Amino acid sequence: MRKNTFLLSSIVAGVFAAMLFESGVSAQEDPLPSWNDGPNKQAIVEFVAAVTKEGGPDFVEPGARIATFDNDGTLWTEHPIYTQLAFALDQVKAMAPDHPEWKDEEPFKSILAEDMKGVAASGKKGLTEILAVTHAGMSTAEFESTVTDWFATAKHPRFDRPYTELAYQPMLDVLNYLRANGFKTFIVSGGGIEFMRPMTDEVYGIPAEQVVGSSIRTKFEMQDGKPVIMRLAEVNFIDDKDGKPIGINQYIGKRPIASFGNSGGDREMLEWTGAGDGKRLMMLVFHDDAKREYAYGPADGQPDTHIGAFPQSLMDEANARANWHVISMKDDWKQVFPSE
Amino acid sequence: MRKNTFLLSSIVAGVFAAMLFESGVSAQEDPLPSWNDGPNKQAIVEFVAAVTKEGGPDFVEPGARIATFDNDGTLWTEHPIYTQLAFALDQVKAMAPDHPEWKDEEPFKSILAEDMKGVAASGKKGLTEILAVTHAGMSTAEFESTVTDWFATAKHPRFDRPYTELAYQPMLDVLNYLRANGFKTFIVSGGGIEFMRPMTDEVYGIPAEQVVGSSIRTKFEMQDGKPVIMRLAEVNFIDDKDGKPIGINQYIGKRPIASFGNSGGDREMLEWTGAGDGKRLMMLVFHDDAKREYAYGPADGQPDTHIGAFPQSLMDEANARANWHVISMKDDWKQVFPSE
Ligand SMILES: [Ca+2]
Ligand SMILES: [Ca+2]
Repeated sequence: MRKNTFLLSSIVAGVFAAMLFESGVSAQEDPLPSWNDGPNKQAIVEFVAAVTKEGGPDFVEPGARIATFDNDGTLWTEHPIYTQLAFALDQVKAMAPDHPEWKDEEPFKSILAEDMKGVAASGKKGLTEILAVTHAGMSTAEFESTVTDWFATAKHPRFDRPYTELAYQPMLDVLNYLRANGFKTFIVSGGGIEFMRPMTDEVYGIPAEQVVGSSIRTKFEMQDGKPVIMRLAEVNFIDDKDGKPIGINQYIGKRPIASFGNSGGDREMLEWTGAGDGKRLMMLVFHDDAKREYAYGPADGQPDTHIGAFPQSLMDEANARANWHVISMKDDWKQVFPSE
Repeated sequence: MRKNTFLLSSIVAGVFAAMLFESGVSAQEDPLPSWNDGPNKQAIVEFVAAVTKEGGPDFVEPGARIATFDNDGTLWTEHPIYTQLAFALDQVKAMAPDHPEWKDEEPFKSILAEDMKGVAASGKKGLTEILAVTHAGMSTAEFESTVTDWFATAKHPRFDRPYTELAYQPMLDVLNYLRANGFKTFIVSGGGIEFMRPMTDEVYGIPAEQVVGSSIRTKFEMQDGKPVIMRLAEVNFIDDKDGKPIGINQYIGKRPIASFGNSGGDREMLEWTGAGDGKRLMMLVFHDDAKREYAYGPADGQPDTHIGAFPQSLMDEANARANWHVISMKDDWKQVFPSE
C-alpha cells in the first residue's frame, strides 16, 4: 500500500512537472531560448533581474524601463542592401511604365537595367532622386498602402522569404523578455519612420507610436473637402548618429536604460543611454556569420561594408566600457531567423 | 418562517448591493461622476460602448483606440495667461540679478516692473526674446529640473493653488474612463513638449512618451566627456493648427478615433480625427463659466480673448457636424477642479 502510494505520488508529480514544462510556467524556463549560454546572454538576464528586483539597489520603476532598438542590422537583416532601398528600387520599376523618360535618365536608367554599379555611381544625388519619386508626392495613406502591399509580396534575394520573416529570433526573444518584465520597447532607426510603421507591430510587437525614425516633411491640406497629409520631398529629421539621442529626447522624452545597435550610427544612442544614473545595458550586434547571415565590419578584420559598418573605433569603445557588450552572431545565437 | 427567510434574503441582498456600490464594481457605477447628465456625457458613454463592443459594427481593436487631448484650456486652466508664459515670466524675475542690463531693456524691463501692458506691447519679438532666455541655452536636464522646481512652488494668481491642481476633474474622468476601456491617451498641445512632460504623468496619468507638443531644436554634444543635449533658441516644430495632425502623424503614426480641444488651434486635429473611417468622437470645451473658472469666446457672444480663442466659425463647424460636441463648462460639468 505504502509503495503504491509512493508510486502514485511519483506519477502525479511527473505529470504535473510535464504540464508545467509544456505550459511554459516553469520557473526554470529559459527566457532567451535562441541564445547560447555565455556572458552576453548572462548580461541580459542579470540586467533584467537587477532592475526589476523591488527593494534592490538597481530597481527601476516600470515607467522608466525604456529600451531602444536600432532596426536595420539589429532587429532584421540589412544586407545585401537596406530593405527600404530594395523597396525604393522595386517602386521605380513599378512606376517606370508611366515614366518613359527614365530609360535615358540616371539613376533610373541603371535601376531599370539592374545595373547596381550604375545606381551606386549616381551617388547621393541619385539616391535623393530615387527617394523623392518613391517616397514623396503622395499622401501618407497612399504611402502606407504601397508599403504594406510591398511587404506582402517582396522577397529577400538570398533567403527567398518575405523581409518580414528576416527578423532575428534572438532579438525577438529579447523584446518579449523585456516586455514581460515591464519594459516599453522602442525602435530608434535611421530608416524611414513611415516605412517601418506598417510592419513593426506584426513583426516585433512594437506599435507605430513606439517607432522613432527618419522623416520627410509633410503638409496638411484639404482635397475635395477631405483632409489629407501629403509627403514632401524635403528632409525633416535624420535619426542617425547624434540624431538618435535627439530623436529619443524628442519622441520619447525619457532616457533609455537599455539600448541595442549594430553600427557606427548607434554610438551616440549607446553613449546617451550609458550616461544616465543607475544600471544600464548597451549591446551591439556584430555580424560575423557569413554562413547563416552575413559577415561585415570592418572591425576585427571582418570585410568592410557601406551598409551598417561597424568601425574598429566602436569595437574599441565597447571593449573599454564594462556595461557595453558585443554580440557575436556566430557564437551567441543558437538560431538566427524564426523559421529555421 | 417563510417571511423570515424573505427578510434575511433582503438584508443579504442589500448588504451585497452596498458592498458592490462601495467597492466600485457595480455595473451601474457612473464612469463620469463629475459630469452632469445630458447629451454630452451620453455621447462619450455611447461612443465608448460602441467601439469596445466585440462583434459590434463599430468595434475598434485596442491598438487603434487612440485619443488625443489638447492641454491648455482643454485639460487645465489657461487664463489669465498660459501656464508656460507664467513660468517664463517667473524665470525672467529669477534670472534678473544676473542680468542688470534688463532694467533698461524691453521686454525684461516691463516684466520686472510687473507691467503686463508693456510686455504685451513688445509683441512677438518680445515673446521670442523671453522664450530664448528662459527656454534655451541650457541642457534638457537643467530645463527639466527648473520646470519641476517651478511646478512645486508656483501658484495660480486667482485660485491660489499649484497649477498642477488646476486640471479639470471632468477631463480626468474622461482620461481614466477611456484608459479603463483600452484607450491610449495622448496630449497634443501647442505648448512646449519639454515644459509639459515633467508633470503629465502625475497630473493626467499620461507618460512623457505620450506627449506631443511644440519644440525647439536641440544639439547633442560632449561636455567633460559626458553627453548632453543642449536646447537651442531655434524653433523646431509648432504643434498648433495644421501642425496638430502633422504632429499626430509624426509622433503617433495612427489616426485618433477621439479628439478633445477648446480653441481654433484644435480645428485641424478634430477634422483629421473625424475624417477617418468608423465611429469617431470630437469634443470642444467651451469656457462659459466665469463664476467657477473663466468665460471667453468670442463664439456665442462670450468675451473675446487672445488666449485660447474659440471663434464663431469653429462653433458653426461643430454645430454642423453630427459627431462634434461642444461641452459647456457651466452646464455639463458638476465639478471643475479636483479639490472642490
Ligand atoms: Ca543598424
Ligand atoms: Ca487649447
